[in-house]
Amino acid sequence: MFFLDNIFLYEWERVDDLQYKGLKIIQDKRNFCFGVDAVILSNFADVRMGDKVLDLGTGTGIIPILIAGKTSAEHITGLEIQTSMASMAKRSVEMNNLQGRVQILEGDLRRSTEIFKTNTFDVITCNPPYKASGGGLLNEDDAKAISRHEIKCTLEDVVSTSSKLLKPGGRLNIVHRPERLVDILSLMRSLGVEPKRLRMVYPSPYKRATMILVEGVKKGGVFLKMLEPLYIHNCDGEYSDEINKIYNREGCV
Amino acid sequence: MFFLDNIFLYEWERVDDLQYKGLKIIQDKRNFCFGVDAVILSNFADVRMGDKVLDLGTGTGIIPILIAGKTSAEHITGLEIQTSMASMAKRSVEMNNLQGRVQILEGDLRRSTEIFKTNTFDVITCNPPYKASGGGLLNEDDAKAISRHEIKCTLEDVVSTSSKLLKPGGRLNIVHRPERLVDILSLMRSLGVEPKRLRMVYPSPYKRATMILVEGVKKGGVFLKMLEPLYIHNCDGEYSDEINKIYNREGCV
Repeated sequence: MFFLDNIFLYEWERVDDLQYKGLKIIQDKRNFCFGVDAVILSNFADVRMGDKVLDLGTGTGIIPILIAGKTSAEHITGLEIQTSMASMAKRSVEMNNLQGRVQILEGDLRRSTEIFKTNTFDVITCNPPYKASGGGLLNEDDAKAISRHEIKCTLEDVVSTSSKLLKPGGRLNIVHRPERLVDILSLMRSLGVEPKRLRMVYPSPYKRATMILVEGVKKGGVFLKMLEPLYIHNCDGEYSDEINKIYNREGCV
Repeated sequence: MFFLDNIFLYEWERVDDLQYKGLKIIQDKRNFCFGVDAVILSNFADVRMGDKVLDLGTGTGIIPILIAGKTSAEHITGLEIQTSMASMAKRSVEMNNLQGRVQILEGDLRRSTEIFKTNTFDVITCNPPYKASGGGLLNEDDAKAISRHEIKCTLEDVVSTSSKLLKPGGRLNIVHRPERLVDILSLMRSLGVEPKRLRMVYPSPYKRATMILVEGVKKGGVFLKMLEPLYIHNCDGEYSDEINKIYNREGCV
């Protein structure tokens, strides 16, 4: 164990600079680190001044920290079921001096109505496990497996929880894999969170989409707006202007 | 009235060359003519040797005629509710000498189980009216309005009919507007035609999608395959290679 900026760190942890307003994040070198999905979800979410935001399955807290930096949200809560992840997230919040606006709670989103009042949040974000659990081959205590597979929660848990916790008109934002699009859209509609914005994310033009960004509005009317595609790279292999802008970079890296 | 290739034509009709295997189509100059949507749907549909195909709301018969030209389908039926449209479609079939493989029937798809046996077709195609009816402002006898608005049938009618008429494992192919994606995917899943392939169609990269192509499989397992985007034009404004190939053209037009 050692200290950095008065925050203690385990030897398996590292601190990464988010290169945005001096923000930093503590991550476990042994597990997976946040990816482009968390970054583009934070950018996709329509967070307005004074909003109360909840990030379900917040992991290392990357999404609450980015939203705190990028928006005028009044308060952002990150809910995380894994103790070690929640610990990292809490210390990252302290390291960034965001305790006044960001709170990390250790808890199970499937029991979230015991933790939060219903009709509470303006915005919910979720970068859920992408893979359906589909059997008993996974180690249920493995942090990587929990982040990647639907062990501790399913997509239905996420949408159903959001449907309860959002205010009417509140917005659920999910990043996921394209093959789950039918599940997401069908579940949202059937659980009263009408899909309103959809954005396909492509590695580059002429390739297949690798991610989807979906916004559903609680009790929203029926009309889906399909946004422009988001390309990570241009045809020439360079990062697209939009990705550079999202990452706050000038030119290519 | 006049004759062309021994087929009679009204003075408000014209004959267009499809520039594919000498195929032709009769269209009404006063109404809208077939567009890129019918062409890309005919190309998107996975029609195999010996298949029995049904095109719902066939209009001028463009889709049956293109599928007859492009595939080894055994038989293609086009069902059309409007007498004048069905008449044009029948005469186009004769003009192309396709009577042995293509049949046009005048009828209402909402009563299709009185016309066809259930579990009959390998493939169903539909280029349905894009706009929800939403009120009484439309002329219910106007051919343009019927082709564009859900006056004579809704999306639910199309999916529900297909669910009955397809063989198990049979494939429903729809072209539609992106804003109806939630409706299409939700209806397909709830009516037992699982969405399996989805393709977004863009005017060019960096623009919003203007069409979607969806394939659902009757009693199919849950897994959506997201295909590469289809661009009508490249960034430089020229038709894309794929569109030129679909239209059987070399280079730009």
